[in-house]
Amino acid sequence: MNGRLTIPTDLDVVPETLELMERWGADAIRDADGTDFPQELADTGAKIYKTYYTTRKDNEWAKANPEEVQQSYLMTAFHLATQGELRIKLMAGISPELMEPNTRDDIKRWWEVVDRTTGAPLAPNQWEYDEATGEVVISTPIQYHEYTVSFLAYLIWDPVHMYNAVVNDWKDVEHQITFDVRQPKTREWSMRRLRKFIEEHPYVDVLRFTTFFHQFTLVFDELRREKYVDWYGYSASVSPYILAQFETEVGYKFRPEFIIDQGYYNNQYRVPSKEFLDFQAFQRREVAKLVKEMTDICHEYGKEAMMFLGDHWIGTEPFMEEFQTAGVDAIVGSVGNGSTLRLISDIQGVDYTEGRFLPYFFPDSFYDGADPVIEAKENWVTARRAILRSPIDRIGYGGYLKLAYKFPKFVEYVESVANEFRELYTNIEGTTPYCVKTVAVLNSWGKARAWGAHMVHHALYQRQNYAYAGVIEALSGAPFDVKFISFDDLRADASVLADIDVIINVGDADTAHTGGAAWADPQIVAAIREFIYRGGGFIGVGEPSGHQYQGHFFQLASALGVEKETGFTLGYDKYNWDEHRDHFILADVQDAAAEADGAGKPARNHHLPDFGEGKKSIYALAGAEILVQKEKEVQLAVNEYGQGRAVYISGLPYSFENARLLYRAVLWADHSEDELHTWFSSNYNVEVHAYVENGKYCVVNNTYEPQSTTIYRGDGSTFNLELAANEICWYEI
Amino acid sequence: MNGRLTIPTDLDVVPETLELMERWGADAIRDADGTDFPQELADTGAKIYKTYYTTRKDNEWAKANPEEVQQSYLMTAFHLATQGELRIKLMAGISPELMEPNTRDDIKRWWEVVDRTTGAPLAPNQWEYDEATGEVVISTPIQYHEYTVSFLAYLIWDPVHMYNAVVNDWKDVEHQITFDVRQPKTREWSMRRLRKFIEEHPYVDVLRFTTFFHQFTLVFDELRREKYVDWYGYSASVSPYILAQFETEVGYKFRPEFIIDQGYYNNQYRVPSKEFLDFQAFQRREVAKLVKEMTDICHEYGKEAMMFLGDHWIGTEPFMEEFQTAGVDAIVGSVGNGSTLRLISDIQGVDYTEGRFLPYFFPDSFYDGADPVIEAKENWVTARRAILRSPIDRIGYGGYLKLAYKFPKFVEYVESVANEFRELYTNIEGTTPYCVKTVAVLNSWGKARAWGAHMVHHALYQRQNYAYAGVIEALSGAPFDVKFISFDDLRADASVLADIDVIINVGDADTAHTGGAAWADPQIVAAIREFIYRGGGFIGVGEPSGHQYQGHFFQLASALGVEKETGFTLGYDKYNWDEHRDHFILADVQDAAAEADGAGKPARNHHLPDFGEGKKSIYALAGAEILVQKEKEVQLAVNEYGQGRAVYISGLPYSFENARLLYRAVLWADHSEDELHTWFSSNYNVEVHAYVENGKYCVVNNTYEPQSTTIYRGDGSTFNLELAANEICWYEI
Repeated sequence: MNGRLTIPTDLDVVPETLELMERWGADAIRDADGTDFPQELADTGAKIYKTYYTTRKDNEWAKANPEEVQQSYLMTAFHLATQGELRIKLMAGISPELMEPNTRDDIKRWWEVVDRTTGAPLAPNQWEYDEATGEVVISTPIQYHEYTVSFLAYLIWDPVHMYNAVVNDWKDVEHQITFDVRQPKTREWSMRRLRKFIEEHPYVDVLRFTTFFHQFTLVFDELRREKYVDWYGYSASVSPYILAQFETEVGYKFRPEFIIDQGYYNNQYRVPSKEFLDFQAFQRREVAKLVKEMTDICHEYGKEAMMFLGDHWIGTEPFMEEFQTAGVDAIVGSVGNGSTLRLISDIQGVDYTEGRFLPYFFPDSFYDGADPVIEAKENWVTARRAILRSPIDRIGYGGYLKLAYKFPKFVEYVESVANEFRELYTNIEGTTPYCVKTVAVLNSWGKARAWGAHMVHHALYQRQNYAYAGVIEALSGAPFDVKFISFDDLRADASVLADIDVIINVGDADTAHTGGAAWADPQIVAAIREFIYRGGGFIGVGEPSGHQYQGHFFQLASALGVEKETGFTLGYDKYNWDEHRDHFILADVQDAAAEADGAGKPARNHHLPDFGEGKKSIYALAGAEILVQKEKEVQLAVNEYGQGRAVYISGLPYSFENARLLYRAVLWADHSEDELHTWFSSNYNVEVHAYVENGKYCVVNNTYEPQSTTIYRGDGSTFNLELAANEICWYEI
Repeated sequence: MNGRLTIPTDLDVVPETLELMERWGADAIRDADGTDFPQELADTGAKIYKTYYTTRKDNEWAKANPEEVQQSYLMTAFHLATQGELRIKLMAGISPELMEPNTRDDIKRWWEVVDRTTGAPLAPNQWEYDEATGEVVISTPIQYHEYTVSFLAYLIWDPVHMYNAVVNDWKDVEHQITFDVRQPKTREWSMRRLRKFIEEHPYVDVLRFTTFFHQFTLVFDELRREKYVDWYGYSASVSPYILAQFETEVGYKFRPEFIIDQGYYNNQYRVPSKEFLDFQAFQRREVAKLVKEMTDICHEYGKEAMMFLGDHWIGTEPFMEEFQTAGVDAIVGSVGNGSTLRLISDIQGVDYTEGRFLPYFFPDSFYDGADPVIEAKENWVTARRAILRSPIDRIGYGGYLKLAYKFPKFVEYVESVANEFRELYTNIEGTTPYCVKTVAVLNSWGKARAWGAHMVHHALYQRQNYAYAGVIEALSGAPFDVKFISFDDLRADASVLADIDVIINVGDADTAHTGGAAWADPQIVAAIREFIYRGGGFIGVGEPSGHQYQGHFFQLASALGVEKETGFTLGYDKYNWDEHRDHFILADVQDAAAEADGAGKPARNHHLPDFGEGKKSIYALAGAEILVQKEKEVQLAVNEYGQGRAVYISGLPYSFENARLLYRAVLWADHSEDELHTWFSSNYNVEVHAYVENGKYCVVNNTYEPQSTTIYRGDGSTFNLELAANEICWYEI
């Protein structure tokens, strides 16, 4: 077998490239930032990718057309008015290398000064801008009110370029300016620029767009430290040109506050406003149209258009329908874990998807004495669970090939990964893996944030969300058909729940992940109650349906069988505290404590699942069954509700044990305990994936140690198996 | 010295009473529930108290006037509508011995069926009551909406009588029915009844009213278990007669929801609605008028009217101005700690206050082998700090004297307590103790819940509030002039802050203790900002000013220097994590860890203060100084704001160490570090109270072990002192 692998190259590694292409079976070669493509490799038969920077690397144009430099909305800090006038320095705390206020357009129209104590914007005649000092001046503010200024600034240094320069300590590098392809002159020129680029690189097969038009929000401070980041942020996708269009299209007046959002910039934790949803939809439509112009040009030249899922990807929203019209042939993205793998592999309507694996061939991983195999293994094994559910079509690596070449064990390991990937891809190809249940994650975003729910920066840990993101990660490799549904989806069409077995709602109260005021909408709450009552399953994690309203903090309290004590119900006596540790859901939680002391205690359930940060002050209503409480704070409970069942979990960081707990919770919630032993491993460190159509199944050891297990086939028949560390074994059905 | 002590007596302990009166120096004798007054003691010269039950102990009347039995509003549980009609059993979960639905009055006017999914009440023609089954029937409910019924029920068994009967397992006791003195027939009859009682008990000097007209909310379930309790609850103070009056007086239509409050019954955690505040004010006025009729009768007969602060005390609100018109001569209440002591001792406008100490002379504390001295000491020492700030005028005990008499060590201990109390009372009398600062607790209730803020049931622990109630307890014995101010007080007159040094706001977000939406009122937030900015101090505990609005979760985030991460600001990088353990506020926190291991580590600040439950996800803004963080969750921080200072504390359970921490926080917040060594003990287990007017000060050991300390006098001069366990030493200035 051969192919499905992309490797980087450079002028100085032609023989090594040829050797590794052969050894690893690579069928595509790519350049990278700071590398060049050696012409000797043009005719190897491998596909050749070349990175194309749509919005930067042409300062001449940017400088000649400063009014078409990309802009971003920014909000200053909160400033307190005391005596007399209030002066607010716009750029305090923001890198002046990165941004520059836009005073070219009508600031009275596009900026906004807001009294944050009343919430009202100031009339334009109530403030002035002092260009000399860079300050907005409010001459007669209300004493002891706080004010902010929302303003537009040009991206005079591309944020990713700045990031690379700062991290790598590049000296004397010219700051690449981000130009805005959406604006008329740049748009027209960009099409010519693209044609020119293609014509100058005839050997290239694939244009790897990095990316299209708008950078996710990334702001640095005066010390060049990251100040704000949102991988999903739209605040750097604006300009008066675009916003005037938006105004016309939606038919209501634009306010900077639609983007500023009190300084929260509509990050995905915010329950989205109608105006922001309108703006996103507008951007999706416009971006797709413009992408289509570029992909058409590629196709005209017989080239493929590949999109990098990152950097200037804002507005493309590959899970939304507009993307289907953009003409993109392929998607490539970096793989940090199972969730980010599926962020790529679940995208529809492209010819192929490609995951770029770690480690990047950079000196920070490939230095004397390093063992890059460790990171490579971890990355591969973590992502493999998700690939087995929804395969990407290709894998790839990036960076400097000469670095990797010096590590023979790494070269050997990549060979094994490439072979393993090709084998599993062949075995899986074209089929849907066996799914025991259909599970829907319900939140305010639905498929727009599919697999990326809770994510702030790409795959980065946050203490406030790892116990929620853990649910998404567990799902990424679980034998479920996973859907992401928004409250708006449900409002538009209640039948979206028709084929769902279990609904999951996960996150903190009054965030978009649980839904906030959506639960005060009778249509929503009645639909979910009906779903459960008539036999559906519901799993709530954290503060599911959390929104104080009409006597409940959890609007689904009656279904979940648990409620949060916010002080309002301290007067009610609570008698339900018994634990039911022998429940189906807990059956695979290992008794670590008993094992450790060897004292022959009953073998089960001294050890508690890891709930991460857990939750405080959750209590059970009468009738619910507590599975785990810690000092009278419920962490895990179950409840029967009509014909249906609900499970409450306080938090669920990703681990193999917790993935199993969630798996059992889904089965229990759907009354399907009897389906447990179907394509199942008794040892939760090992998973089974079946591809019934292809007559194949595999058993995969997710750990770095050997494992023993009993495997249950689809018909319930069993066999025992010993697996080597990381091993994957394929069988015929 | 002699006097200031009340003891119980009974027919069978006349000689013992005489002996203990002499030995303890008692000057008043009381009966108790289940005891009788021996006539032999009528002429001892001691005052004689007799308990008078205003609302019960006359079932003949109650049965003859069933329409004037006291009523309570109750809400059923939430009931889900599925197919067809919905039937809601009113009394499910409520003791039928305790309550009986009132169908005598117009249920369509006084009951309310609420669709809790829309929040709207049903039109009267949308439901019926099926008397036979005790069910409300909604014939065409909306499917999958939840419904509740709010209804009136008679108190057919007085809740306190039921409690006593259940706890003591009384058999065959006739259930005492609570009659409603507010209603016309019972009112008129009650005045005659009181006169008759006085006339039949000529030897009585003091009528100990237990109490007036309305029981605090106390509901039992069918298993006779406590179901709901609120020591401040008003839901059992209603009747159509009263509510029709209320309607007329306020000029708007009454709704049961004003009392039901979504099933939260306006407990003190709820930010009070205008309607509930109106209702309370109405009740205060009416109750005071009626109390006055009764106290006038007492005075006419030359008797004193004493009010027990408990049971049917609702509507009296002794900290509110209406109480001043009620003619009450004396208040007696039970003392559980320092806060409950001041709940009594801070009441103005009575001739004297009396604290009933523990243990009650009951068999649960006085059995063979018991050591009742332990409980007595703990109670005395805990309350003593508060007495030294604001003395009650008398102390007392209750129960069966013959039980106490059998414990010679207890008899001896009470003698010492009585002597100690009389000594301190004499030394303190008439003066205001030295107050280093004036401190205001700011919340939605102000003085209405002075000293009882956070309290659910009298002095009972709640996990959700001990770290907040701890602040109130610390204040009860601290050398501060303590005021309780409401947001409405501040709205009415900003000058209420004029003489305040430090404002304290303590509790969870969106509760009445922190204020909820009050912080979205520009008038409030600007006034508090100005107060701090111009040099005032602010201490926030828990989630101070917590209410999501206009870009802040803590509305005083800028002043406090801390904010809560709710997910909305995860995109902001946070760089301020350094700890400043050498701060003035932490200087007395003992290094328990270093002491324990004896390893000669630096002597300070390895040990952390006890923050109780603490808080999660609090981070510091730039410029704030973190004193303690736990894994990047701030527990204690300080901030300069204009000329003022703010302190954030995540929680502060009561302990001697934490009382000291709060003391230092108050001084620091008011820029008064230099006042620390004024009437001060270097050892925080020991406190100093000065009565400058009387030329006295005392040093008091609050612990049950001997203590060494250095004492600082008012002029800063010092001396070392060794104190015995619990010792109090008095000095001349």
